[in-house]
Amino acid sequence: MKHKGILIVVSGFSGAGKGTVMKELINRYPNYALSVSMTTRKPREGEKDGVSYFFVDKAKFEDTIVAEGLIEYAQYCENYYGTPRAYVEEQMDAGKDVILEIEIQGALKVKEKFPDALLVFIMPPSAQELKRRLTARGTETQEVIDARMARAAEEAEGIEAYDLLIVDDDLEECVEHMHSVISAAHCRPDRNKAMIENMRKELNALVKGEK
Amino acid sequence: MKHKGILIVVSGFSGAGKGTVMKELINRYPNYALSVSMTTRKPREGEKDGVSYFFVDKAKFEDTIVAEGLIEYAQYCENYYGTPRAYVEEQMDAGKDVILEIEIQGALKVKEKFPDALLVFIMPPSAQELKRRLTARGTETQEVIDARMARAAEEAEGIEAYDLLIVDDDLEECVEHMHSVISAAHCRPDRNKAMIENMRKELNALVKGEK
Repeated sequence: MKHKGILIVVSGFSGAGKGTVMKELINRYPNYALSVSMTTRKPREGEKDGVSYFFVDKAKFEDTIVAEGLIEYAQYCENYYGTPRAYVEEQMDAGKDVILEIEIQGALKVKEKFPDALLVFIMPPSAQELKRRLTARGTETQEVIDARMARAAEEAEGIEAYDLLIVDDDLEECVEHMHSVISAAHCRPDRNKAMIENMRKELNALVKGEK
Repeated sequence: MKHKGILIVVSGFSGAGKGTVMKELINRYPNYALSVSMTTRKPREGEKDGVSYFFVDKAKFEDTIVAEGLIEYAQYCENYYGTPRAYVEEQMDAGKDVILEIEIQGALKVKEKFPDALLVFIMPPSAQELKRRLTARGTETQEVIDARMARAAEEAEGIEAYDLLIVDDDLEECVEHMHSVISAAHCRPDRNKAMIENMRKELNALVKGEK
């Protein structure tokens, strides 16, 4: 029997390595689909429409808002970013577990519209380790690193809003742990109504000697 | 940091194989402890006090009830059976995940006293398979098999009271699946308060440049 997919919202401090975890998770298991955001920002070099983002103009984005075609959206630096509902629902109907990588405000909006969504917060093993990872990239200025650390301190206040907290200590372990917690979420009885009903019918039939 | 253990209540149709799954789970991972029930029934050959059961007389059992020393208890065939609270709490405090194998009425009583307990229902892949397993043992009369099938049909009505439903199709898979869902339960933010508080303190200290 084909199960409907689960919507999984993943948040975590910027620079903590959650992008790498998600990429590896999706490469490894065929049952996941990464949600593709819609944006009005211009494509950067190498970015592909429909893969990196769905690139649209402002009018199209606002039409999509009005048509309730977005699960959540926000505006940063004069550009819109949002999560198209159609793609997410199609993938879930096809049995895929759809992963959205968004920050906490977006995560809470998704939970309102999809109360069954699984909210996962990925966290580095320590604040020192977060700083080390941000610094190790060698591509960020001290100012950017400080800003990200300050943002992490703010985001840490919202962790209780998530269903699960996963520590990203080791990539391999973290990927397998993510896969485990999502598999576990599939075991809730309300996600297996058809199977339970079927078992009841079969048992009753056997007890009544109809088989 | 040492986590407090989780209380896991496992139920399932009699004869479905959950005993084998629990035994293998405990053999394989050191973080589990199987709760030992207290009973007034006489020990059978080979049963050891403190391993199979805590064997006590009726007076001692009733004293334990009065002292609220049991998480749940029931009476079958003039004998008492119950779950001693002290053993469960000691093991959980020592960081062990404690597994209770009890039927649904007991499971619901445990959930009342330990709202954080994880209730897991283990189910065979089909009613036909349950019947096959009951028959394959070769040790039960047709009457016993029929009674167990009828009991299974009743128990199936209560599955929604459980947090998780696991299908016991293959022993190896079922053991690993059990371990995964229990690991996932450890990831709830309310089970990681100290870790979250610590991260907040560390982040704030680093942002304020105290480190």
